[in-house]
Amino acid sequence: MKPQSILETILYNDNIESALWFYSEVLGFPVVRDMTELGFACRVDESHVLLIFDPTEASKAGRTVPSHGSTGQGHIAFRIQESQYDHWKDRLSSFGIEIEQEIEWTPEGRFSPGRSIYCRDSFGNSVELITADIWLKEPPAKA
Amino acid sequence: MKPQSILETILYNDNIESALWFYSEVLGFPVVRDMTELGFACRVDESHVLLIFDPTEASKAGRTVPSHGSTGQGHIAFRIQESQYDHWKDRLSSFGIEIEQEIEWTPEGRFSPGRSIYCRDSFGNSVELITADIWLKEPPAKA
Repeated sequence: MKPQSILETILYNDNIESALWFYSEVLGFPVVRDMTELGFACRVDESHVLLIFDPTEASKAGRTVPSHGSTGQGHIAFRIQESQYDHWKDRLSSFGIEIEQEIEWTPEGRFSPGRSIYCRDSFGNSVELITADIWLKEPPAKA
Repeated sequence: MKPQSILETILYNDNIESALWFYSEVLGFPVVRDMTELGFACRVDESHVLLIFDPTEASKAGRTVPSHGSTGQGHIAFRIQESQYDHWKDRLSSFGIEIEQEIEWTPEGRFSPGRSIYCRDSFGNSVELITADIWLKEPPAKA
């Protein structure tokens, strides 16, 4: 018995306007709900929504849902197609977004093969674009 | 042009042992990688991995990947089957996990119908079990 999937993943950002630009314009996710100062929800795929919330607003007591909200840099990894890797690098650069790091994942590093581009949103969240499910392989038994 | 899906969703927790208990035993997700003090990765479905990281470890400089790590309560919503709703309530209770709130989502609240159970993991992250994709409906036009 386990839940079937993840419906909502959340990242916090104290500048909703810049986050809206990054996630909807640069990354291209359609916004499905604008909750003004609280933030917004965007559709990642048919079964998954990404929430971007202002941590001050989300952590206020007395909301209709349990409060939450964290400070500091979060992380998310989005799947992209291998054939689109260079296209994404060009796209990020064309929007003035710095590519912080690239990584080639290898079986020697106990990961399935794949490539990642890392950048940051305006809150400093570590945003990764990755070409494969590098977690598919089981790690070798410990010595 | 947009990424296809989310591969990695992350939550932070400064008590990896209790997080392991909560996500693998209570919620039932198989662990695909144990990274000892950094945390672990568990498999949610065929295309999605949940990372639970210690924020102190994850935010250290000099890791092989860009650093990240936040403090405060995050949030995640997992899809469950409507027919399993009461079963999940019983299961959480049987593990001594308090149900913080339940919500019935309605079109009047600008959401598609569904029900949610809210609880907390040991770090205080708000963990929601929800029976439907309540974000499917577009909000009404603003007056």
